[in-house]
Amino acid sequence: MRVSLRVSCWLPAAFTVIITITGWAGGLCASEYGETQDFKWPAAQTAGFFCAGANVVMELDFGKLDGLIPAVIQDHATGRVLMVGFMNEEAFRLTVQTGFATFFSRSRNKLWLKGESSGHRLVVKKIQTDCDADCVLVEVEALGPGVCHEGYQSCFFRTLDNGSWAVTEARQYDPKEVYGGK
Amino acid sequence: MRVSLRVSCWLPAAFTVIITITGWAGGLCASEYGETQDFKWPAAQTAGFFCAGANVVMELDFGKLDGLIPAVIQDHATGRVLMVGFMNEEAFRLTVQTGFATFFSRSRNKLWLKGESSGHRLVVKKIQTDCDADCVLVEVEALGPGVCHEGYQSCFFRTLDNGSWAVTEARQYDPKEVYGGK
Repeated sequence: MRVSLRVSCWLPAAFTVIITITGWAGGLCASEYGETQDFKWPAAQTAGFFCAGANVVMELDFGKLDGLIPAVIQDHATGRVLMVGFMNEEAFRLTVQTGFATFFSRSRNKLWLKGESSGHRLVVKKIQTDCDADCVLVEVEALGPGVCHEGYQSCFFRTLDNGSWAVTEARQYDPKEVYGGK
Repeated sequence: MRVSLRVSCWLPAAFTVIITITGWAGGLCASEYGETQDFKWPAAQTAGFFCAGANVVMELDFGKLDGLIPAVIQDHATGRVLMVGFMNEEAFRLTVQTGFATFFSRSRNKLWLKGESSGHRLVVKKIQTDCDADCVLVEVEALGPGVCHEGYQSCFFRTLDNGSWAVTEARQYDPKEVYGGK
């Protein structure tokens, strides 16, 4: 099998692409995409779900929320729910193909590779969908101290306690140092 | 404090209301609602968050999804994500006040007490919100063998495997027996 790799650059310029052939489990999906294809970057860890053809995307129901589905992000080691984002078809396909969780940002109206600014990427370990196929559950290994842009390990750092929301954990990092003025 | 209980009947008629005064942690929110109020039914387990006043509801951002927020339901004992539903303000308020997860059904366009048909109610143990306050994470004790209307413990019973969705667990109950022709 002849493999042609072309690294597309919507990665940050400083991002170092490390290609570890032995780390691949699913190969390059040659049977589905032909022997050559565009390929952005391999996942740090793979789980055998690289081949995201049209069928698996089309089986998801993006019609209920104007082209989006909620994506629940769960730490694969601890089971903690880290965040909920939204994916459109392209974000889901990129998530599957790259092995890094990618969302569609509703506020910025564009694709959003989680960690593109902070480096706190989410390495995909497992993807599940629900009975209605209108939601996905993504188990990840979270790179970095936290996924929340406010400095917490999880975006769910506030707990309802006797009628008000209480911050129930400590910050893991200083968001100003990571995100600067963004 | 004089307490007046009136049991409203959007409960199934056969539902037995068991009132266990000693099981209450938050009382009847007399300070917030006055000394008497309508009260549907107490939660089997309480977590001290019964008092859901206007503030805590208004702090949630229902504006991004036409009045709804996603609600991730997680088993409080195992950490398994069981389902994702949607809540409007009233569903959220009922969830907090009653201690049973209540959603807004998009397909039926009405409030939906989870388990109203099956009896598989979700007893709320903990409620958290995220940094943007546009989503809630609800830890529950799931009554019954499963939350999925297709008979599985979790709605997330399909896993992406080499390019297709594979059912990766066994049914826990026969949905026909529980839901009949519904």
